[in-house]
Amino acid sequence: MKNKIVVGADIGGTNTAVGLLSESGEILRKLKFSTTAFDDAESFVAALCAEILVEIEKLSDNYELCAVGLGAPNGNFYSGMVEEAPNLKWKGNVNLSAMFSKALNVPAVITNDANAAAIGEMLYGGAKGLKNFVVITLGTGLGSGIVVNGELLYGHTGFAGEVGHTTAQLDGRPCTCGKRGCLEAYISARGFRQTAMEMLTANKTESVLSQIPMEKLGPKSIAKAANEGDQIAREVFEWSGKILGRQLADTVAYLSPEKIFLYGGIAHAGELLLEPTRNAMEENLLHIFKGHTGLEFSQLQGKSGGILGAAALAWKSFCAAEKSVSSEG
Amino acid sequence: MKNKIVVGADIGGTNTAVGLLSESGEILRKLKFSTTAFDDAESFVAALCAEILVEIEKLSDNYELCAVGLGAPNGNFYSGMVEEAPNLKWKGNVNLSAMFSKALNVPAVITNDANAAAIGEMLYGGAKGLKNFVVITLGTGLGSGIVVNGELLYGHTGFAGEVGHTTAQLDGRPCTCGKRGCLEAYISARGFRQTAMEMLTANKTESVLSQIPMEKLGPKSIAKAANEGDQIAREVFEWSGKILGRQLADTVAYLSPEKIFLYGGIAHAGELLLEPTRNAMEENLLHIFKGHTGLEFSQLQGKSGGILGAAALAWKSFCAAEKSVSSEG
Repeated sequence: MKNKIVVGADIGGTNTAVGLLSESGEILRKLKFSTTAFDDAESFVAALCAEILVEIEKLSDNYELCAVGLGAPNGNFYSGMVEEAPNLKWKGNVNLSAMFSKALNVPAVITNDANAAAIGEMLYGGAKGLKNFVVITLGTGLGSGIVVNGELLYGHTGFAGEVGHTTAQLDGRPCTCGKRGCLEAYISARGFRQTAMEMLTANKTESVLSQIPMEKLGPKSIAKAANEGDQIAREVFEWSGKILGRQLADTVAYLSPEKIFLYGGIAHAGELLLEPTRNAMEENLLHIFKGHTGLEFSQLQGKSGGILGAAALAWKSFCAAEKSVSSEG
Repeated sequence: MKNKIVVGADIGGTNTAVGLLSESGEILRKLKFSTTAFDDAESFVAALCAEILVEIEKLSDNYELCAVGLGAPNGNFYSGMVEEAPNLKWKGNVNLSAMFSKALNVPAVITNDANAAAIGEMLYGGAKGLKNFVVITLGTGLGSGIVVNGELLYGHTGFAGEVGHTTAQLDGRPCTCGKRGCLEAYISARGFRQTAMEMLTANKTESVLSQIPMEKLGPKSIAKAANEGDQIAREVFEWSGKILGRQLADTVAYLSPEKIFLYGGIAHAGELLLEPTRNAMEENLLHIFKGHTGLEFSQLQGKSGGILGAAALAWKSFCAAEKSVSSEG
């Protein structure tokens, strides 16, 4: 019997990372692809799948492709489509899972990047064995993947888990979604930048942050400055941690997860962010929840978490089911 | 074969309502009992179960008790206990389900009153066939029962679904839980009273509300005044609806439910509250959620919803499972 493998594809607004993975999560082949180089989804999928087939050819005959898992902005598990994604060139609803399925002749499944990260954490990361947890992904925006009773929470529309667009400050900062005061307007690459700019403007204290061009101000550069002792950089994380922690206390009130994992660019900040966040979360928890929710960084950090997550979704959706059917029969 | 029945008990801080129910939700017998007349849980359960056995005796021999379902403040489905309930005389953790099970010699299950209401809505009310919905219960406080993928959301601790203690206003009104600005501090019998008092104090407009003693100011009396054209009474619901609707938009961002049901004393307000709440919710929804979540009153309103909910939990936990096992065998 051949060894089954899946394609895991982490489709981002700029780049797409793809892997061929074994069930244990080993990445046998990996490729990086430009998302923006293609004006429409059809040509993107055609070119990418041609490369994937070349990579599969390079493996020995001992491997057999079983399924495709896709993580993409606004990927809807129910419809198989990418729906109105604000960060992609393709407009409207695009049936990406059907396109991949046709091109590679295996079943394909899609979800958004944060849900993929949550499934990845459950199969290959720190959430092994957990039935109730949340993964917060931090990049350009703030996404969240919620697992309840061991299953991803999709809700009625397939889009449940938009913690980034819950209100952190009434009538607060404008968010790219059109609302005001969303958590994402504070806790995201953009949010950190704005906080740093506001603090630089409001303070007379000298800060190395003022020597960094605006487009390079982000979690990474601010964390570097903070670790070198910059006072304003430290305050950026203190203040941001309070906002994030307070909002995570609401997350706990809704879901009572065993753990909350932070994933993405924010990991550069480490304890600079984690400590004030944890303190603010605990402080704002209802007494019945105090001490019952862990807060930590993802264990897939820096380990192609997006690819692992998309692959995990494929295993969970198709291959694992096949296996259990065949073991019964 | 005998007809199976269950006990459904809705245990409140002041009174306990109990029913003997058939699987279709017909209440064959009903009794009302004082919760406060007993200083400890043991004597409460002993006296109540003695009365329940008398009621069962009154039925024909054709009925057989199958299980007990309990809805109680801070009832924990996982542990079977009432844990640190602020509105009950019994302190600490009380294993109420074990006490009932022993006294009546059938399995017993417990959850909090809002979760019971949600299960009741699913089996006997407006949530039949829905897989993702939320029930908000409004009485002294604000509770919530969340159903995800057709199952109650308990989370890691068993206490998930505390929407009443998510933050509606930063540094807002003190809440009985010790935090500030909780939704419950605005949307509850107490919250409506405080809003009315604040508006009466701040306004020079004449209002019949100023003739009502404070302890009688609540959703019912304010709704009556509003329906008779009182301007301040109308503003109480307008303003409260904005707060509730905004918070429900966050609820949708987390859970994407198909419907949200309001249950309890607040129903007196009808469209006076529902309309501003619906408008504020829609206005604050992320575009992908707009128009996808219905907001309506519970269909169990005024129909012993608490008893139906507790009974539904018993059916779902024990009797339905038995039935499916026997139909397979």
